[in-house]
Amino acid sequence: MTTSRRTFLAGLGAIGAASSLSAAPASASLRVNAKRLQQTLEDLSVFGRPAGGSFADGVSRIAYSEADVAGRKYIMDLMRNAGLDPRIDTAGNIHATRAGSRPALKPIVFGSHIDSVPNGGNFDGDVGSLSAIEVIQTLQEGAVRTRHPLEVCIWSNEEGGTVGSHSAAGDLDPATVDREFNGIAMRPGLIRIGGDPTRLADARRAAQSMHCYLELHIEQGGTLAKANIPIGVVDGIVSIDQYAVEIRGFANHAGTTPMPERRNALLAAAKLIEAVQDEVTKIPGRQVGTVGQLTVFPNAPNVVPGLVKHTIEFRDLSEETLVRLAEAAKSRAQAIAAETGTQITFTQIEHLRPALATPAIQKQIESAAAGLGLKTMHLPSGAGHDAQNIAQIAPMGMIFVPSIGGISHSPKELTSWEACADGANVLLQTILRIDAT
Amino acid sequence: MTTSRRTFLAGLGAIGAASSLSAAPASASLRVNAKRLQQTLEDLSVFGRPAGGSFADGVSRIAYSEADVAGRKYIMDLMRNAGLDPRIDTAGNIHATRAGSRPALKPIVFGSHIDSVPNGGNFDGDVGSLSAIEVIQTLQEGAVRTRHPLEVCIWSNEEGGTVGSHSAAGDLDPATVDREFNGIAMRPGLIRIGGDPTRLADARRAAQSMHCYLELHIEQGGTLAKANIPIGVVDGIVSIDQYAVEIRGFANHAGTTPMPERRNALLAAAKLIEAVQDEVTKIPGRQVGTVGQLTVFPNAPNVVPGLVKHTIEFRDLSEETLVRLAEAAKSRAQAIAAETGTQITFTQIEHLRPALATPAIQKQIESAAAGLGLKTMHLPSGAGHDAQNIAQIAPMGMIFVPSIGGISHSPKELTSWEACADGANVLLQTILRIDAT
Repeated sequence: MTTSRRTFLAGLGAIGAASSLSAAPASASLRVNAKRLQQTLEDLSVFGRPAGGSFADGVSRIAYSEADVAGRKYIMDLMRNAGLDPRIDTAGNIHATRAGSRPALKPIVFGSHIDSVPNGGNFDGDVGSLSAIEVIQTLQEGAVRTRHPLEVCIWSNEEGGTVGSHSAAGDLDPATVDREFNGIAMRPGLIRIGGDPTRLADARRAAQSMHCYLELHIEQGGTLAKANIPIGVVDGIVSIDQYAVEIRGFANHAGTTPMPERRNALLAAAKLIEAVQDEVTKIPGRQVGTVGQLTVFPNAPNVVPGLVKHTIEFRDLSEETLVRLAEAAKSRAQAIAAETGTQITFTQIEHLRPALATPAIQKQIESAAAGLGLKTMHLPSGAGHDAQNIAQIAPMGMIFVPSIGGISHSPKELTSWEACADGANVLLQTILRIDAT
Repeated sequence: MTTSRRTFLAGLGAIGAASSLSAAPASASLRVNAKRLQQTLEDLSVFGRPAGGSFADGVSRIAYSEADVAGRKYIMDLMRNAGLDPRIDTAGNIHATRAGSRPALKPIVFGSHIDSVPNGGNFDGDVGSLSAIEVIQTLQEGAVRTRHPLEVCIWSNEEGGTVGSHSAAGDLDPATVDREFNGIAMRPGLIRIGGDPTRLADARRAAQSMHCYLELHIEQGGTLAKANIPIGVVDGIVSIDQYAVEIRGFANHAGTTPMPERRNALLAAAKLIEAVQDEVTKIPGRQVGTVGQLTVFPNAPNVVPGLVKHTIEFRDLSEETLVRLAEAAKSRAQAIAAETGTQITFTQIEHLRPALATPAIQKQIESAAAGLGLKTMHLPSGAGHDAQNIAQIAPMGMIFVPSIGGISHSPKELTSWEACADGANVLLQTILRIDAT
């Protein structure tokens, strides 16, 4: 599968102009209710919690599951409590809009997702989703009316490949609707959460119909936590190139085949894994390269491996770097093939273009954080997010909060309550600053 | 499972004395019928042949299968044609004895197996089995009466772990009878081939009840073919040490985990695979070391591998070399663990002691080959054979014939008809030389 991302560049002018303005004094002192944010995160965590477990045992709130349905009901009730009137589009995304004072202006859209991976954590997606509603609740209580309409979006099935936001961007692979996600078929699943698989195209949002899109999310890596920086300003979501590598040697009896006669596919794979590590780490930058999936044939203790299939995945904001890394790996592979008597082929199976954050929005996030006395650092997002799809149709910005130990997609995933509140406040203040332009 | 082999050292004196004698002139000129040997190999190949295939398509004559039953019937008919009266012991081994002129002497025993691996070839086991019967037929036609009784043994289920010959040696793991072999349960399987799973112990042969045991077999490696030597004199069957290695890193998101933060179990495994190769090949000798089985967890393209399990198998005639290799690998593993932030543990799962061939028998094989104008070379057997079990209860010798390209356990397994006949003639002349002592 090859997927591409386009970065939407329109609308920058209007937001860029905002950097010279400051928010109104009254709203600048507005803060979310940190206790309530914690409470809603804890409340949501019960939907998909392992039987007999606690918050620390994480969550399996798989898209389209009963836990997902229950979590979404909780979210919509919370929206109603905040004075919103949620609706579900045909892709199962939940939308709720708070009117602005200038009906002609496009909405400032923000949100995240509440579905999880199997045995996931209680912060991935949830922090951004509940902070978005908390922002609305805070504005409601502070009686602050924005000029732009504010729209909270909770995207459906993020963990299955940002399915809801792909639908909104209008570039969902049509075959997706016939897929299963963690054992749940999408068609009946989508109906279960209030969507309509026969009218998926209706979920498409017109290009330039949003003023901008903002997403608060946990970093999922350990960079912010290690640097002790509370707020990450995301430069963009990295480009991903994925290759399927096939190494053909010759399977033979491990007892009767002398070492010099072997054409050992696993030995070749070992050398290639080391070469990938070497090529990725020997140049400066934040690029990563991973051999995550590897299968040996025939995979018996007493047979010299005749075939190894493995993946190589490269990620970086720069597509050029990814091309250079793949070329370097291929060149190393040819030398390894010659040395080991094997044949090595690369097939590109995915190319995801980077989704760059809009610089003017990044500046607003920095200013908002500075106004809250919070240090920031710029970093790429190595993980995919709904924001990467919405960046195709709107200016985009992402705010990261620290993941303790860099752990994610695990019950051990952890972000401090204070960091969650910091993130929510930066989201709130960024919205107000953008609205003030 | 830990299995040990004892090498039987009794009875060497009698055979050793033979090296100074020569066979009687009449029988020294005796030769097997090469055409008939080829014909029987071709005839046997149809039992287990892939539907619609030819001899070159190999065979699946799995122990206890219908093809095995049919092949065994063919073998027993062939024995009867050669004047023998085959019987099946409780372990399913087929025995047939030709009386000698001195009834008090112990039998010279020789044979092999006719079961195959799935998708195997038509030479592994078959050459030794059919040559054994051809030797009897040749003696019959030549009206040559030996002093010792001659006993042909076709051992059952060799490919499942030399089950029949283990039973004869009296050291079959009692749990074996409840196992499945390539999907066929042993208990009903053994009944199907004429054995009796309730009386397996009856198949045990008393120590020193054989004068000696000889086995002709294809090399399965490429050493003889490469050196263009027709006859291999086996020094012994190698010792095997097998280890289960577990490498524990930490599974994390491949996009969000910077390279220096990773505890990548597969990178550690790659380094260990190379270290094993390095340690095995940097010292002189014929030792081999193989990482043949490897499994990655969670094995997803976008997850840094958190756990790798793999085997390491070392083989050599010297147990001391195997201990040294394992120590070297463990020491390298500890350095790799420190370097990669992983934990690496070794668990020994098998220790097979070497089964050394009896030097006096090796000398008789050399003399027999020299008498036939055939060059010989000494080499270890890297593969296991029934002979390794029988070596526990009798003096043992093995004759190898070349495997073209060193290919085995494959339909591509190939030994020339001429080489098969050479091997059978060496077996015949070795028997006559040993008998003449």
